[in-house]
Amino acid sequence: MNDFMIDIPTRVLFGKGSIAHLDWALRQFGMNVLFVYGGGSIKRTGLYDEVMGILNEGGFIVTELSGVEPNPRIGTVKRGVELCKEHDIQVVLAVGGGSTIDCAKAVCSGFYYEGDDLWDMVKNVKGPKKSLPLVDILTISATGSDFDGGGVISNPDTKEKLGNKYTYPSVSILDPTYTYTVSKYQTAAGSADIMSHIMEGYFNKVADSELSDAIAEGVLKSVIHNLPIALEEPDNYSARANLMRAESIACSGIPEFGKDYTGWPCHVMEHELSAYYDITHGVGLAILTPRWMRFILSKDPSCVWRFVWFAKRVWGLEGEDDMELALKGVDALEEFFRSSGIPMSFREVGIGEEHFEDMAAHAESLGRLGLGFVPLTKDDVIEIFKDCL
Amino acid sequence: MNDFMIDIPTRVLFGKGSIAHLDWALRQFGMNVLFVYGGGSIKRTGLYDEVMGILNEGGFIVTELSGVEPNPRIGTVKRGVELCKEHDIQVVLAVGGGSTIDCAKAVCSGFYYEGDDLWDMVKNVKGPKKSLPLVDILTISATGSDFDGGGVISNPDTKEKLGNKYTYPSVSILDPTYTYTVSKYQTAAGSADIMSHIMEGYFNKVADSELSDAIAEGVLKSVIHNLPIALEEPDNYSARANLMRAESIACSGIPEFGKDYTGWPCHVMEHELSAYYDITHGVGLAILTPRWMRFILSKDPSCVWRFVWFAKRVWGLEGEDDMELALKGVDALEEFFRSSGIPMSFREVGIGEEHFEDMAAHAESLGRLGLGFVPLTKDDVIEIFKDCL
Repeated sequence: MNDFMIDIPTRVLFGKGSIAHLDWALRQFGMNVLFVYGGGSIKRTGLYDEVMGILNEGGFIVTELSGVEPNPRIGTVKRGVELCKEHDIQVVLAVGGGSTIDCAKAVCSGFYYEGDDLWDMVKNVKGPKKSLPLVDILTISATGSDFDGGGVISNPDTKEKLGNKYTYPSVSILDPTYTYTVSKYQTAAGSADIMSHIMEGYFNKVADSELSDAIAEGVLKSVIHNLPIALEEPDNYSARANLMRAESIACSGIPEFGKDYTGWPCHVMEHELSAYYDITHGVGLAILTPRWMRFILSKDPSCVWRFVWFAKRVWGLEGEDDMELALKGVDALEEFFRSSGIPMSFREVGIGEEHFEDMAAHAESLGRLGLGFVPLTKDDVIEIFKDCL
Repeated sequence: MNDFMIDIPTRVLFGKGSIAHLDWALRQFGMNVLFVYGGGSIKRTGLYDEVMGILNEGGFIVTELSGVEPNPRIGTVKRGVELCKEHDIQVVLAVGGGSTIDCAKAVCSGFYYEGDDLWDMVKNVKGPKKSLPLVDILTISATGSDFDGGGVISNPDTKEKLGNKYTYPSVSILDPTYTYTVSKYQTAAGSADIMSHIMEGYFNKVADSELSDAIAEGVLKSVIHNLPIALEEPDNYSARANLMRAESIACSGIPEFGKDYTGWPCHVMEHELSAYYDITHGVGLAILTPRWMRFILSKDPSCVWRFVWFAKRVWGLEGEDDMELALKGVDALEEFFRSSGIPMSFREVGIGEEHFEDMAAHAESLGRLGLGFVPLTKDDVIEIFKDCL
């Protein structure tokens, strides 16, 4: 088992009605609130009115940053930072999914950034940053941004989508009923994102970090059990709650304590896709992951033992031949994504071969592909992309 | 799934050599340190000298509270609080096992307690308390006091042993190599304590808190795998590290998120044993647990489904008849404890029938036995005690 540190300062309030704590959560930091949200779905569902009701009743002074994109852009972060400075903001409230929370995190840190160009903070200032306090209300189970310190910001001008560490939310309000209105497509894509967060770390050379593996397998099995229920019955509380519990822990680092950092190769490759094509992150991950798995199994068959664990413990499969069993596990994953309604090829989401070279070169330039369970080169990435067509 | 809150502010530094962070961990709070430890085993192992070397080199002003008992007593807590007041203590450092850390927690809270009698704080002031900051270095994998806010203090005069919430450690230094010198007996008893912390919550009416169950099962399987290795090879890093990882999470509340609070019936019963007989806590739990399991299975056979899960998922057992399978799981647990060298009857640890009435009456008076997976009465407790003879 490798050394590790646990340091997750976020207070999570989980359950139906936990918005009752919103006033308290904000008030401890101040009355001047930046209210960050996305494209208006919270207006359709009534959550916007509910939040504004609480804010107005509490006497908070509210500034709004709306229109955060599904892949949040540096321009929106800049706009948020300007609003914070202009309105003397003391606490940021993000209501939405991972994109909204990621954008809000970058705004919280950007407020204290002293350089000229916020993109430089995203790209070059590594590690956690001094930040305004952040409270969030999650509305989709996907990224786990409610229980980690990271965020991913895109720059359409440079065609880059980059993750960095900003700040942990101080308080995350997780009410599974807010995810009842999430579409089947986004529910499935979000679940693929949750599973990817686990699989990126699960496929790992360290074999003796037993509890971390058990947690990883538990998250995967819970998503496999509950996603079909949530697709069938969108307002099934138990299914939505289990998906939300899974998403919250999946990106927290907890399932990877004691293991090697793998560089999260599928995320590196996917960020190229959504930087060039602005596709749904979870869909990109779902398409890439089984192809990546088959590629590394073929590149380095000695990694098969971990895939045997995956097939047996996660999918309950059995078999005599290790490689055959390993591939059966990968097939099960691909079929699970497909049966959840996720388009499972590049063609279906409008991606062609035209940028493969550039995307693979940029992915390699980030320096994380060499860290993986099975290290990848630029040419390997192109091979994997081709398999996804 | 029930509602829950996550709020664990402890920073855990896990791994060989993590004592390197001790100076930083203390210095953030101040230079006046109360150094709390037990019966001197840390002097035999050299850890005392290592800690004092760091404290002296760092220029800390150190006051010692030594001789903390295996079931820490209110008198020792009082002595600690007096030392804190006398020496203007700014941070408490506990080096040892759960007893030492529990005692240190009560000292941290006792410092701010304004009543006349500290036992009244232990007995009557419910919930977390304003406290001095606490840093700990753990030397045995057992109670999980390094990653929770509770502590258990005994009063020999009133024959009471009571748990309460004091404060979370600010920093916990978990170095598995410090447990290499723990005796086989204490290693096994500690593992029984870890497993009990899980089982107390695992046997639960809530069936759909899936990740919590997966974590609980993962902890149990990891202990079942690693305890025999640690008994055979006391300096096997991986085994000791997995036991330490298991102990740290087992009492944290994490394996119970989303489930009912059961009142922890075996702990309630065991505290009576160690209040009257001062036996090793983990040994008392190991003796009680299989008997409690058989008793509730017989009292309310409708609870058998959870025992079937336990038999299948934790012990890998199979069988057609549910009750038979359930009892096979309980037998496997009892045999595991016995084969680990734990004395598995009251007679072997010097407990007779003489106080059964009083102990059961006091256990019932605490009001927690009625909350359980299968609620217990005073007479039920006497039955369970008799089965343990």
